[in-house]
Amino acid sequence: MPEIRQNLATREWVIIATERARRPEQFILPSRGSVLDRPEYDPNCPFCPGNEELDLERFRIPASGDWQVRVVRNRYPALLEHDEYQRRLQGINRSLAGFGYHDIVVESRRHNTCAALEPVEGLITTLQAFQTCAAIYRRDPRIEHIVFFKNHGATAGTSLLHPHAQAVALPVVPHDIRVRNEEARRYFDDYGECVLCRMREDEERQQDRIVVSSRHFTAFIPYAAYSPFHLWIVPRRHTAHFLNATADEIEDLAHVLRDVLRRIYYGLNDPDYNYVIRSAPESERLARHLHWYVTVIPRVTQTAGFEMGTGMFINTALPEESARFLRNVVLPDDSTDNDYD
Amino acid sequence: MPEIRQNLATREWVIIATERARRPEQFILPSRGSVLDRPEYDPNCPFCPGNEELDLERFRIPASGDWQVRVVRNRYPALLEHDEYQRRLQGINRSLAGFGYHDIVVESRRHNTCAALEPVEGLITTLQAFQTCAAIYRRDPRIEHIVFFKNHGATAGTSLLHPHAQAVALPVVPHDIRVRNEEARRYFDDYGECVLCRMREDEERQQDRIVVSSRHFTAFIPYAAYSPFHLWIVPRRHTAHFLNATADEIEDLAHVLRDVLRRIYYGLNDPDYNYVIRSAPESERLARHLHWYVTVIPRVTQTAGFEMGTGMFINTALPEESARFLRNVVLPDDSTDNDYD
Repeated sequence: MPEIRQNLATREWVIIATERARRPEQFILPSRGSVLDRPEYDPNCPFCPGNEELDLERFRIPASGDWQVRVVRNRYPALLEHDEYQRRLQGINRSLAGFGYHDIVVESRRHNTCAALEPVEGLITTLQAFQTCAAIYRRDPRIEHIVFFKNHGATAGTSLLHPHAQAVALPVVPHDIRVRNEEARRYFDDYGECVLCRMREDEERQQDRIVVSSRHFTAFIPYAAYSPFHLWIVPRRHTAHFLNATADEIEDLAHVLRDVLRRIYYGLNDPDYNYVIRSAPESERLARHLHWYVTVIPRVTQTAGFEMGTGMFINTALPEESARFLRNVVLPDDSTDNDYD
Repeated sequence: MPEIRQNLATREWVIIATERARRPEQFILPSRGSVLDRPEYDPNCPFCPGNEELDLERFRIPASGDWQVRVVRNRYPALLEHDEYQRRLQGINRSLAGFGYHDIVVESRRHNTCAALEPVEGLITTLQAFQTCAAIYRRDPRIEHIVFFKNHGATAGTSLLHPHAQAVALPVVPHDIRVRNEEARRYFDDYGECVLCRMREDEERQQDRIVVSSRHFTAFIPYAAYSPFHLWIVPRRHTAHFLNATADEIEDLAHVLRDVLRRIYYGLNDPDYNYVIRSAPESERLARHLHWYVTVIPRVTQTAGFEMGTGMFINTALPEESARFLRNVVLPDDSTDNDYD
């Protein structure tokens, strides 16, 4: 029988559609060729070494010698850095000039790779670059909210093959974020604790939906996961903003995130995916009721009119089964994945 | 310069990304063959005449002779009609048994057609079938919310080619609907009027974003449209629930909706799309601050990590240009579209 479950943090209901549910194995994609089949260097790729868009560069890591990760302004930004900061009210319509930051984090020198195939050092450096970006954006008092994400593959919204992630800083707090944060505040009001901490502890006690855990993080499929293999990586230490993560936590997160991405890559045959780092709005970065975390969303199903008309998801996989499947993926020996020395 | 616009009804901010914006013509899809290339009858299609799943039938229109539209229970429903209605609290996790209605509206006898190519009578009958469904579901006091939608094409979430729409009745009010309705209530509190009425009147005065208007409806691209060609069809008469629409309004809506779908079909080369009828929750169907309407979402772009992490949309088309493009689509003579006598 289907079940309607509630996500405690967001209060959203999700239909777990057992009548149409598929076994985890049924989500494994047919092979579509490996990223390794691509050339290591593409002369037309603006992210490949030698083609660097130097006019757009914000910083590189390391600063001298061969860079490992570069942060560049987006050539086609959704938002522009400019001086105008003005809210407008024309008749009933509210708008503001599209000010903000929209950067690209080039994650590797190599064109033919992805996070699941790279040594962990690459992901550590990417996460460090995110933190540096946040520190830069934060100096601008007009910035209200910062979000980091990666789009892997065409159905996840990317058009450039060279591995890259993105950072966006906004002059508004998105409505959806405000609504979620209100729910977190209400939970804190009622119970005197953070809802994310509570959910993480509960998952650790139950163990059914845990995929990976480490010293600082727990990766689990939420009880009311929105889609098959939708996964949260929650830090054990309670703090509202990703920029509060210590160097030690960043390194540990890179290991856990890479482990999760490898389980998805090898277990499901390299599906497209998004990951997002969710953090408090800038003005609430000290809020006791907020908790930063990472969400990973493999793109193995399609949203349809129902989701658009209700905001409610139909998940055709049982979260407990999805977690067991990812836990049991046999990963190849790490050292065979790359030809770095 | 990009612009950040607010949708007055939902209070959501949308980035109108002029730096990456495309002209309306650039959204026209390459041709992928016509639905008319398919056979008119498919022996393996459960919706084709002769293959009817009679055990699943709820009703047909007309009741005798050749049916024009059939309503059948979904063979793989997201929710089941059953007697158990129970909320459960296990530890911190809330759930309820997956009770509800999930029906299919088979829109035509023909396998190789779509709403844009059919005579308007087909769409009138489909909308009448939706109303009959709502009247049936409403008799069940456990139903909290009813939604109608259509998924056209694979990227819009459909797997069966035979033209069909869907009806779902839920035992909960989706969180997203509650949040939107709270915003509508707040607007009514502040201004003593319905926000949808206000937006429709404003669009009619400005004319920039109107696509089609009729005796009872106005179809326009909202000022802060979420995606290219995202369109609302708003009834002029203020009422909260779709089931309150009169026979005259239903017939008029069919004409307007079909006109919009034809503009999308011919103008953009038959993209996948969803449409949704948004209506008040059952317990609020008399609410003065709520207003039913139809939203149409052509699937010409992909959502990515940014949308997932913020709930905020980046629209790469200027709403005014999208509206002008759809207004100016030259439609073929209606009578050439079908071979009905």
